[in-house]
Amino acid sequence: MTDQTEAPPKLIYAKLAVIGCGLIGSSMIRAARAKGIVGKVAVADANAQHRERIEALGLAETVTADAAQAVKDADLVVFAVPVMAMGEAMAAAAPGLKAGATVTDVGSVKGAVCEALADAAPGGVFVVPGHPVAGTEQSGPDAGFATLFENRWTILTPQSRDDAPYQAALERLTEFWMALGARVELMDESHHDLVLAVTSHLPHLIAYTIVGAAADLEEVTEGEVMKYSAGGFRDFTRIAASDPIMWRDVFLTNRDAVLEILGRFTEDLQAASRAIRWGEGEKLEALFRRTREIRLGIVAAGQESAEPNFGRDKRE
Amino acid sequence: MTDQTEAPPKLIYAKLAVIGCGLIGSSMIRAARAKGIVGKVAVADANAQHRERIEALGLAETVTADAAQAVKDADLVVFAVPVMAMGEAMAAAAPGLKAGATVTDVGSVKGAVCEALADAAPGGVFVVPGHPVAGTEQSGPDAGFATLFENRWTILTPQSRDDAPYQAALERLTEFWMALGARVELMDESHHDLVLAVTSHLPHLIAYTIVGAAADLEEVTEGEVMKYSAGGFRDFTRIAASDPIMWRDVFLTNRDAVLEILGRFTEDLQAASRAIRWGEGEKLEALFRRTREIRLGIVAAGQESAEPNFGRDKRE
Repeated sequence: MTDQTEAPPKLIYAKLAVIGCGLIGSSMIRAARAKGIVGKVAVADANAQHRERIEALGLAETVTADAAQAVKDADLVVFAVPVMAMGEAMAAAAPGLKAGATVTDVGSVKGAVCEALADAAPGGVFVVPGHPVAGTEQSGPDAGFATLFENRWTILTPQSRDDAPYQAALERLTEFWMALGARVELMDESHHDLVLAVTSHLPHLIAYTIVGAAADLEEVTEGEVMKYSAGGFRDFTRIAASDPIMWRDVFLTNRDAVLEILGRFTEDLQAASRAIRWGEGEKLEALFRRTREIRLGIVAAGQESAEPNFGRDKRE
Repeated sequence: MTDQTEAPPKLIYAKLAVIGCGLIGSSMIRAARAKGIVGKVAVADANAQHRERIEALGLAETVTADAAQAVKDADLVVFAVPVMAMGEAMAAAAPGLKAGATVTDVGSVKGAVCEALADAAPGGVFVVPGHPVAGTEQSGPDAGFATLFENRWTILTPQSRDDAPYQAALERLTEFWMALGARVELMDESHHDLVLAVTSHLPHLIAYTIVGAAADLEEVTEGEVMKYSAGGFRDFTRIAASDPIMWRDVFLTNRDAVLEILGRFTEDLQAASRAIRWGEGEKLEALFRRTREIRLGIVAAGQESAEPNFGRDKRE
């Protein structure tokens, strides 16, 4: 489709408020502005340096530390703070929320957040928790960009209520995410937390741990780890550079699912270790043959670059 | 430097023979030809389909299944077969080797390979084992490219002999790798195997295991794993798509170093697991804060893209 044939942008929300404007919050604002689907934007952020950057970037008409002020008259309120700060942020915003507003979040854990938001929300607002499965290893308002959600999945975990106004709020939020380029799936929050324990939380825990373990070795220097990281290690360092507070909160609030998945992984790792110790080449080869098709599936699902080395190396 | 001021290319080896022409072997040929530092090239490969592709790609003047034929008159012979096939390949080539030839390899394990090559080599050749720490998750002669070694490290693990002819052979091989764009480091083979256990072998084992474990879950479908892989999991699938035979051999031949490093990692993972179970947020945060600087060091060392998400996402 070319620009000429595209329909003119349609406002989906006249006013958007974002509480916590880091990588995800600022990307949502950039994308929503680029698509012309929001009118005014207000941001509340507790971090003074972030507020300064948000002002400088011209992301919002209102930039404040006061959540209740930011959400005034907002039709959509997005909480984009670390998972364990969600309840407090909602409580701070509550006095300013207008009746009929839709309230959502972008937290990586949904069980704990759904409960915290529901507990702190005033009556008369529609709480539709959500999680865009997108991001980079970078943090803060400067790290955001408008295409972050293109072709990525946003999971919404709506409350179990089927009244028409709530369903209308859910549909509108779905339309909003699709306008940002995302694909939307609805899911039960406990299933979300199990799926993300596999596809996101355990990978982060493992990456943090292996990078930490490598730095602790006495026989191998950090310089050697860095120089020879192209052997595979460097792939793990990307997600091990992610925001520490955000990830601390994920593990503290999705404990049961993470420990369950970690238990499965540890069993399999012990089995591989035993196969190495006893020289069981056939077992190792069988494991190593199974995994290539998973990557091909991820490439086919549009979630990964098909280029060797993620395309990070220049091939002349 | 521009083309005009560059010195004309100088032959380093009049004839190069490559035994086993997959990703690494074919990349070495492409790079050496691009730099004009070799004269004739001969390839021996046991795989008939590979030989057909090598012919079609025009990589070599001689393409054969017979290693002894390929190495005839060669000044440099490179064994680029899986680690456990090195000894046999050397034995097959031995009758054809000319006196004074330099023999090297590209195996990811050096202790076992140094021994296998030394045992099978005839007298009068110079055995200088090596390992370019470079690669992609792809395999076969079509996967190679001339810039694969640019700015990557090649580790040479020379034999403990200090006679002048051997030192001259080592210097020439160093010059060859540097002409391919690589940086060269000399190392004791057992230290090599420990360093690579950290920076390459353990990461591969973990990646294979987590991707296998995710595929085995009953409660989460493979489709879900693929759709939501942008949460971190997809990073692990790249190296889990690497060549199964090559990696089986690495683990069987570098058993002790891999099990030692794996033990360290497992301890640390258990500590992280315990911190999650008991809600020890400070411990988790401390771990998560340590790791970002390692990535920054890798970027500074020129071994990694500084772009978010490895630069694989298009940022418009």
